[in-house]
Amino acid sequence: MSSTPLGSTTITQVGIIVHNIEETAQAWASLLGVPAPGIIVTDAYEQTQAEYLGQPTQARAKLAFIQLGQITLELIEPIGEPSTWQDQLAGHGQSLHHIAFEIKGMKQRLEVLAGHGLPLIQRGEYQGGRYAYVDGQQRYGAIIELLEND
Amino acid sequence: MSSTPLGSTTITQVGIIVHNIEETAQAWASLLGVPAPGIIVTDAYEQTQAEYLGQPTQARAKLAFIQLGQITLELIEPIGEPSTWQDQLAGHGQSLHHIAFEIKGMKQRLEVLAGHGLPLIQRGEYQGGRYAYVDGQQRYGAIIELLEND
Repeated sequence: MSSTPLGSTTITQVGIIVHNIEETAQAWASLLGVPAPGIIVTDAYEQTQAEYLGQPTQARAKLAFIQLGQITLELIEPIGEPSTWQDQLAGHGQSLHHIAFEIKGMKQRLEVLAGHGLPLIQRGEYQGGRYAYVDGQQRYGAIIELLEND
Repeated sequence: MSSTPLGSTTITQVGIIVHNIEETAQAWASLLGVPAPGIIVTDAYEQTQAEYLGQPTQARAKLAFIQLGQITLELIEPIGEPSTWQDQLAGHGQSLHHIAFEIKGMKQRLEVLAGHGLPLIQRGEYQGGRYAYVDGQQRYGAIIELLEND
């Protein structure tokens, strides 16, 4: 495991919360001159084991990914609640939500980061890996997502 | 000039609005295991010719840049007002502010983008180039910064 708290210096994703992912995905594709991305829906709780503030949550999201070199632009439309996605849409409207880093050793990483002003707010499994959002808004000015791909 | 509306598909910067740039820059440096970045202050109006919503503005900002491969993480602490930086700090607290693309032909690009749901909100000159923020929050979910380096 890297000896730095975060364990990575490479931003791989920028996430944006949107109201209507079909419209927004089409708008971005036109703006950038790229094909409109497919839209997926996150798995159900039985697969994701999603937790929000330490409690299981049935919240899901529609996602679209636009690959732009090193960075993937991720569009996120919340479905249901509670989730950090829905919190942000309700509190701030459409807006940038997170920057993501790929890491290894999620469990130990989360313990380390909790001691660096980055408490866990939401986590879940996806096919081939897992994610966690840590809340760095107070100390770092942003929510950070950790992505661990197996 | 590129035939796509934006003229670029490469995100080069992610901007974060912060209250206290000295503290936040040090926090990020520790988290990432990199040297603490220097902090600069944007030039005065005489140099920047800054405009906010079409009117000259004396607002400035402290800036710090952390280079992370393709992406530069930009920390921004507003000084004075009016500016999009101060608006966001007042309205949303510390938060992600923009993603930036490098473009050519700023004047024509802004005309094209205004027709794609991206009205100009703030612009200014810096040593060796110029920036413009266009407000894509409604159609794209984010403020986009255009950077043109001579």
